[in-house]
This record gives sequence, C-alpha cells and structure tokens, in this order.
Amino acid sequence: MGGALPSWNDSAAKSAIIDFVARVTAEGGLEYVPPPQRIATFDNDGTLWCEQPYQVQVFFLIERVKALVAKDPSLKDRQPYKALLEHDHATLHSLGKKAIMELFAATHAGMSEDEFDKIARDFFATTKHPRFGRRFDHLTYRPQIELLGYLRDNGFKTFIVSGGGIDLIRAFAEEAYGIPREQVVGSSAKLRFEMQDATANLMKLAELNSFDDREVKPANIGLHIGRRPILAFGNSDGDLAMMRYTLSGKGARLALLIHHDDAEREAAYDRDFKLSPLVEALDRAKEYGITVVSMKHDWNVVFDKK
Amino acid sequence: MGGALPSWNDSAAKSAIIDFVARVTAEGGLEYVPPPQRIATFDNDGTLWCEQPYQVQVFFLIERVKALVAKDPSLKDRQPYKALLEHDHATLHSLGKKAIMELFAATHAGMSEDEFDKIARDFFATTKHPRFGRRFDHLTYRPQIELLGYLRDNGFKTFIVSGGGIDLIRAFAEEAYGIPREQVVGSSAKLRFEMQDATANLMKLAELNSFDDREVKPANIGLHIGRRPILAFGNSDGDLAMMRYTLSGKGARLALLIHHDDAEREAAYDRDFKLSPLVEALDRAKEYGITVVSMKHDWNVVFDKK
Repeated sequence: MGGALPSWNDSAAKSAIIDFVARVTAEGGLEYVPPPQRIATFDNDGTLWCEQPYQVQVFFLIERVKALVAKDPSLKDRQPYKALLEHDHATLHSLGKKAIMELFAATHAGMSEDEFDKIARDFFATTKHPRFGRRFDHLTYRPQIELLGYLRDNGFKTFIVSGGGIDLIRAFAEEAYGIPREQVVGSSAKLRFEMQDATANLMKLAELNSFDDREVKPANIGLHIGRRPILAFGNSDGDLAMMRYTLSGKGARLALLIHHDDAEREAAYDRDFKLSPLVEALDRAKEYGITVVSMKHDWNVVFDKK
Repeated sequence: MGGALPSWNDSAAKSAIIDFVARVTAEGGLEYVPPPQRIATFDNDGTLWCEQPYQVQVFFLIERVKALVAKDPSLKDRQPYKALLEHDHATLHSLGKKAIMELFAATHAGMSEDEFDKIARDFFATTKHPRFGRRFDHLTYRPQIELLGYLRDNGFKTFIVSGGGIDLIRAFAEEAYGIPREQVVGSSAKLRFEMQDATANLMKLAELNSFDDREVKPANIGLHIGRRPILAFGNSDGDLAMMRYTLSGKGARLALLIHHDDAEREAAYDRDFKLSPLVEALDRAKEYGITVVSMKHDWNVVFDKK
C-alpha cells in the first residue's frame, strides 16, 4: 500500500481509507464484500471540485444569462436576470424560488439533451474561474481523483450523487474523474421524447424532476443504483442522509466528510456557507461514525491541474 | 465468429447482429464506436423472458394478494382483490386504474427496499409458472443470454429498460442475465428516506414515480444512462420509442424486435396481446429500419433452463 494515495498525508484519514479497503477486499476475511456490492458514492461540489465563491452551476447560469442578454438586451434590466448579473444576492433571495426556476427554465430548457451537452462542453472549454484563473473542470481535487482510481483498482464502482445539474456534470465527469455518464446522479429536469421529422430527441423541459439534495440523495441512490453504498464521501449537511444511509448497512462501512479549512490553498468555510452549510454533520461526526478529512492537514496537494 | 450465438440459427437476424458488432468494434473502421458509447438496452417481458399468459409482475401480484388474504380473509370478497384472485379480467378492467394502483399499494408499498427484495427473492425461489412448471426466473431465453454475453465480450454495457417493476427485476437480473442492479431501469414507486431509531431506510411509497413504457423509456434512458443506445431490443409497441431513439443517433445503429410466432415452444401472439400489443412496430419495421427476429425460425432453443 506504500504508493497508494500520494497526495494524502500519512494521517488518520488516509489510514481509515486504506484499512477499510483492505478489510472489504480480503478474500476469506470476516468483512469481505463481493465486488458487485462495492459501491462508492461521492458528492461533487466541494467534495470532488471547488464550490467557492459559488458552485460551478451558478457560474454556468450567469454565462448562459449573458448569452441570452446578447440576443435580447432588454433582459438585463428585467428581474431576475438583472439581480443575477449584478450579483445582487439580496434581491435574488427576495425574488424567491420562482425566480430561480425562471432562470433555469430560460437557460436549461427548450433544447435537446444533445444541444445542452454541446453548450456545457463549450462552457468548460472557454470559461475560467475568477479567482484561480483556470478552467472550471481543472478545479478538481487531485487527492480525490487518486482516491477514485484507488477504489476502482480495488473493485469498487464509483458514482457521483450531486445536487448539481446531472447534465452539466455528465459533460465533464468522464474525462475529469473517469466516472461514466451512467454513474452520475444529480438534479434533473423532466425530459420529453419528441419525434422531429424522422429524428427522435429528448427535450429538456422547464419542470423540475428531482432536486438531488439531503434526503433525496439516498432516494435517488435507490432509484438509480439500487444498492446501499459501502462508502460515501461528502462535505455538507446536504450529504448527511447519504452518509447515514451508507453507514446503516450491515458489515464494514465508511463515510468521509471534507472540512474546508484551507483558506490559503482553497477556502475555509463550514456553517457560514449559504449554499450548502456544514453544521450537523460536523458537530455530530463522531456520534454518527463519520471520518472528518481536513483539507489543510490531510492533503499535501489540492488541485489536480496547475 | 464461428462459435458465437450457438442458439441462434444462421439466418439474416444473426448475420445482422454479428455484422453490426464487427463494424462498431473494428478499430480504425469508419463505423468504430469507442467502448463507453457501446450502450445496449433490452426490454425484459417478452424480450428476455416469457410474458405469457401474464407478465411475471402479474403472477407476483397474485401471490402477494394471496399472502394478504391469508392474514385477512375478508379481502377475498372485496374488490379489486376478488377479481384478481378469480382472474376476472372484465371486472378488473371495469374497476380501472385506481383499482390497479390499490393492488400495487397494498402489495408493493409500506415496506423498505430491503424488505421488498427479500419478498421478491422468496417468490422466485418458491413459485412456478403454471404452464411450464418451472421457476419464473428459469423462463429466460437462452439465445438472449448468449447475446447479452456476446455484446459484453465486445465491450458493450448491457441495460434492461422495462415496464416491469424495477425492484422485482433487480431481484433476479444479476444472476439470470449478468446485468447488475444499477443497470436496470423500470417502473418505480417513489421512495422516502426514513431514520428508524439510528437506522436509515428507503421506504417504498404508494405513489407512482414512473411507468416506464413507450415514450417514457427513452426519457428514463436519458435520466439513468445519459447516452443514446447504439443497440435496442424489444418485442412490442411499448419499445418503439426506445428503438426509434436508438436508430436516430449518428453512425451505426441496430434495433431488433422479437416476434412471438412459436406456439409450440412458447407462444404466438402480436396485435392481440392486451398487455403490450405489437402493431405499429411490426407493420412499419422495414420503414423504421427495425430487424424482426422470428422466435420460431431464428432461435434453435428458447428457454435457458430445462
């Protein structure tokens, strides 16, 4: 195991991972788990890549609204577009859920799955993070990419279970994480099958199918995967239900939680982060049996790409 | 390719399959498809196993109602239970969709996913098909099991996309077809995450999440798989949208349709079968580019197990 996980420091967190994998893969051992049951689920925002100052989904939304404004300049004086473009969070918040749905409907619906995929790939190829100055899909965490590979080398099947939009994640996850599209679970719009002349397409509708956060994460694991994971990794209370579902199964289980405590290399936040705060999972980690990972102390490198 | 698909006769259908696989796997060839995109989707009832005289889902429903009646004998004089137990299709039909939902709610809901899985496995282990006198999970088609293996040997990922209940299929598909639970898409109930003391469970609710038939099949392929299949196999008009979605993609595509024309070894039916009739797909197969497979002429064996 000497060479495994080189971007992880030799700490309790790394030992917990390597010890767990050794136990579930030891044939004939008391805690052996057959490969088909070696399911590992990872949150994405803040767990596999950077979510500060906003989740990438929000940057994408802003870029899409800018593209709409280029076609119809009157939008930039209309709400909720104006508030989004001016980063006016107070107004956006006061406009409520309906405004958010309007923004998503205007930018994510009324096109086919294939058309959206092309837009998402263009976004990753051309847009840069304002603080780090690099492509968003280059803000993935190297220690986590090593961990995903290490788990797969040990017979695990790795899944993303994210509150982010399923189609946006699918546009980069295969290349960035080695996680194929069919192993991505996320928030989604309803889809409608349509024949356009002799061509069949799936159209994205302006209607929410699933907001994949909190208690919905394990429910979507039930729908998409149909097995209880034996390892789950998250970074906020939005991942707590998934972690407790994972830990509730019989036999060896591991739940891990990243604590962003590294203002210098990335960001330091927990209970103050409005989009996905970390309160209960941090306060009760020990009681629930969750292993806390310190970005500052447990990782010797943060980002995968320079 | 001499040894491939031994239960398939050397006919046009077998040639179409072997030719298609050769073209999409020939590296450097014009129609080469990289392995991650080699997605094959199969209907289940009537495509991978027997659906006559009823779909296995219906036999399962009857067994579950019998178990309820054993606990509460008054049910057997109440509708819709009475009609189901007496095979009184006219009355069942007149009671409508609400009655069907009541039957499913009484037998498939109010229990956890884990509890349902155990019930389904017990059903397969203990119940036999009335005509063939063998376990339901032994009524799978040998030529199709060979085909699934042949596709996987050639780098395909095989999925079930069925109108049947996702949990019932997951209880046997891994052993019978080599298709893991996470590659099964089917009709489903909504699930609710619940903490019961310190244990987290997914409860099956009496509310439909998705009836995975016709236009919903490609929509669920979009949600679960996120890629357009390059091969689809079905046996009724319920599979037509999935086949047309498959055929609409760029590059080499193959859609296959089983025609049950073998009364002696299995059953002969198409447009007269009420549960999932075959009309449009049969009449327009040539126009749509669908390859029709004759059970009688193209298969030299039908069932996998004796």
